[in-house]
Amino acid sequence: MSAAVESVLTAELAVRRAEVAAIDPRLTDDVDRLIRYLFAGGKRLRPRFLCAGWQAATVGTTAVPAGVMKAAAALELIQACALIHDDIIDRSDTRRGSPSVHRLVHKLHADRGWFGDPAHFGLSTALLLGDLALAWADDLFATGLAELGWPVEALAAWRAMRTEVLAGQLLDLRITADQAVDTDGAAADAMVVNRYKTAAYTVERPLHIGAALAGAPSATIAALRRYGTAIGLAFQLRDDLLGVFGNPAVTGKPTGDDLIEGKRTVLLAMARSALTGSPALLAELDEGVGTALGPAQVDRLTRLVAQTSAPDAIEARIAELLRTGLDALAAVDAAGDQLITATAGADLRGLAFAATTRVR
Amino acid sequence: MSAAVESVLTAELAVRRAEVAAIDPRLTDDVDRLIRYLFAGGKRLRPRFLCAGWQAATVGTTAVPAGVMKAAAALELIQACALIHDDIIDRSDTRRGSPSVHRLVHKLHADRGWFGDPAHFGLSTALLLGDLALAWADDLFATGLAELGWPVEALAAWRAMRTEVLAGQLLDLRITADQAVDTDGAAADAMVVNRYKTAAYTVERPLHIGAALAGAPSATIAALRRYGTAIGLAFQLRDDLLGVFGNPAVTGKPTGDDLIEGKRTVLLAMARSALTGSPALLAELDEGVGTALGPAQVDRLTRLVAQTSAPDAIEARIAELLRTGLDALAAVDAAGDQLITATAGADLRGLAFAATTRVR
Repeated sequence: MSAAVESVLTAELAVRRAEVAAIDPRLTDDVDRLIRYLFAGGKRLRPRFLCAGWQAATVGTTAVPAGVMKAAAALELIQACALIHDDIIDRSDTRRGSPSVHRLVHKLHADRGWFGDPAHFGLSTALLLGDLALAWADDLFATGLAELGWPVEALAAWRAMRTEVLAGQLLDLRITADQAVDTDGAAADAMVVNRYKTAAYTVERPLHIGAALAGAPSATIAALRRYGTAIGLAFQLRDDLLGVFGNPAVTGKPTGDDLIEGKRTVLLAMARSALTGSPALLAELDEGVGTALGPAQVDRLTRLVAQTSAPDAIEARIAELLRTGLDALAAVDAAGDQLITATAGADLRGLAFAATTRVR
Repeated sequence: MSAAVESVLTAELAVRRAEVAAIDPRLTDDVDRLIRYLFAGGKRLRPRFLCAGWQAATVGTTAVPAGVMKAAAALELIQACALIHDDIIDRSDTRRGSPSVHRLVHKLHADRGWFGDPAHFGLSTALLLGDLALAWADDLFATGLAELGWPVEALAAWRAMRTEVLAGQLLDLRITADQAVDTDGAAADAMVVNRYKTAAYTVERPLHIGAALAGAPSATIAALRRYGTAIGLAFQLRDDLLGVFGNPAVTGKPTGDDLIEGKRTVLLAMARSALTGSPALLAELDEGVGTALGPAQVDRLTRLVAQTSAPDAIEARIAELLRTGLDALAAVDAAGDQLITATAGADLRGLAFAATTRVR
C-alpha cells in the first residue's frame, strides 16, 4: 500500500516540479525539499485508513482503483503541510530525526551568506512550501474524485476533515495560551483537541472518505466513524505517553519533547490533577513544563509524572477506546445487513492494535 | 458585483462559523477575525475579472449564475490567505489601514496576559487562519464548480493560478535573499515575480476561469489571457510606483513602504541601473533600501529614485502594456468569429484603465 501511495506521489510531484521549473528553474530546490520531506519517513497511516475504509465497503478482492489511491495520497500532502506548519508553530528544530524544513532553509540561507535574516527566510519559505502542499493536496484529491465521478459524500468528508484539523490546531494554540484553571477543564480541552486535530484527521475522516468512495451505506459509514474516533483518540493518548516516556532513539523526537514544548496533553492534565494533594510537586511540574529544561530536569519531571496515577489511567483509557473501536466493527458484522468484509475487518482490527500499542 | 460576491461570502462564512463553533465555541473569535478581514476593504478585483471573463464569452445580458459567483468569491478567500501569510512574511504591522492579523492577535494575547510569547502566538494563529482561508477557498470553488457540472478547463486554470501565485511568492523571497548582481538580471527577475505573483493571479487566471466557465472557445481564452498578462503586469508596475510615490492617506500603506521593506521591484532595479554612472548615489540607495529608514531618509531616497529615468520608463512601460492588452481585445473583435460581447469588451477596457491608472 505504501508503495502504491508513493508511486502516486512520485508521479504527481514530477508534474508539479516541471510546472514550477517552467516558472523559474531556481524554484525546483524548494519542490525537491518537499519531495524529500514526503519520502523521509512517516507511517502512511492516513492513506492506510482511507484504503481500509474503501476495502471495508467493497465486496471481493478488487485492487484499489487509481482514483482511490490518488485520494489516499492526497492525505500525505495535507500531512506534509500540517507538519511543516506545525514545526513553525512549535519552533521544532527536528522532524523525523532530521532538521525541520524551516531550520533546513534557515541554514541554507546562512551558509550561502544571503541577504536578510536567515531564520525569517527559513520560516517564510517553509510557510509557502506548506501552502503549496495544501493546494496540491486539493488538486490531487480532485483528480482522484474526477476519476470516480465526483462522489458528493467523499467530498463532504474531505472538507470536514480539513476544517477539523485546522480548528483543532487553533484550539490547541488557544488552550496552551489561555489555560484552564481547573484540571478537569484542562483534560476536557485536551480531549477536544485530540478529537479534531488527531482522531478525525488521522482515522475517522480517512475511513469515512474511503468508505464513501466505495459507496458504503450510511450505517457502515457511521460504524467506521465510531471506530475511527475511538481508535484515533487512543492513538493520540499513546502519542502523549510516547512524548514523555518514549525512547528518543525509536520515536525520533528528543527526550522530554512534550514537557519542554509545554504541550497541553491529557497526560499532563491528569498528572496535574493527581498532584493536587502535593502542592510542592505540582508547583515544580508547572514551573518546569514549557521551559528550556536540561536533561536532569527532564529526567526529574518524567519521574514525577511517572509516579502519579496518570500513566496507568491513560493506559486504561487506551484499552477502553480500543475496545469501543473493535465493538463498533463487531456490531456491523453482527447486524449482517451492512458491509464490512472479513479481510477488511481483520485489517481494521490490525490497524487498531498497530495505532494504539506502537512504540514509535 | 461586489455586493453579490459579499453576499456569497457572508452566506458561506456563516456556515463555516457554525461548523467551527460546533468544534469549540471559543474558535468563533478566529473566524470572526477572518470575516472582518474579508469585509475590511479590498477592490474585489479578482472576482471582477472572473465575472468579466464569464461575460466576455456569454451572449446576451444574462445574470451571472450562482455557481460562477461562488467561484468568483472563492478568489477573495485565496486573497485573504495570501495577504495574511504575506503580512507574516513581510512583517507588516498594518494592512488596509488597520493592524495586520498577526499583529492584532499578538496584541490580544498581550492584553489578556496569556501564557507564552505574544508575537509567536500572533504569528501562529495568523498562519492557521490563512490555511483555513486557503482550504475554504477550495471548498467554495468546488461548490461553484459542482453547480456548473465540473468544467475541466476552469478547474485546470484554478490549479495553475494557485501554483503560480505561491511559486511567485517563493521566487520573490528568493530574489530578495539572493540578489542578482547585474541590474538587468534584477529587472528580469522582478518581472518574472510580477508575471506570476500578480499578473497571472490577479488578472489572467481569473479571466481564464471565468471564460472557461462560460465555455469560451480556446481562441477567445487565449486573447483574454494575453490581455490579462499585459494588464496584470501594468497593474503591478503601477503598484511599484505607488509603493514609492503614492500618498499614504490614499494607499493605506506607510510612506516609503517598499523602500523600507526592500522590495525587489522593477522600479528599484531600473533606478539602480540608471545610477550606475553615479556610484556614490547608487551606494546610498543600496545601503538605505531594506533598512528601518526614518522619514527624512525615506524622503531623500524617494527624491533620489524620482530624479532617475526609472519612473518615466515605468510609465512608458505601463502605457505600452495597456496598449498590448487593449490590442488583444481588439484582435478578437476584428476576427469576428470569436466571442467578446460589446458590453464585456467595454467592461474589460474600463477595468484595464482602472487597474493601471489608479492612485491607490
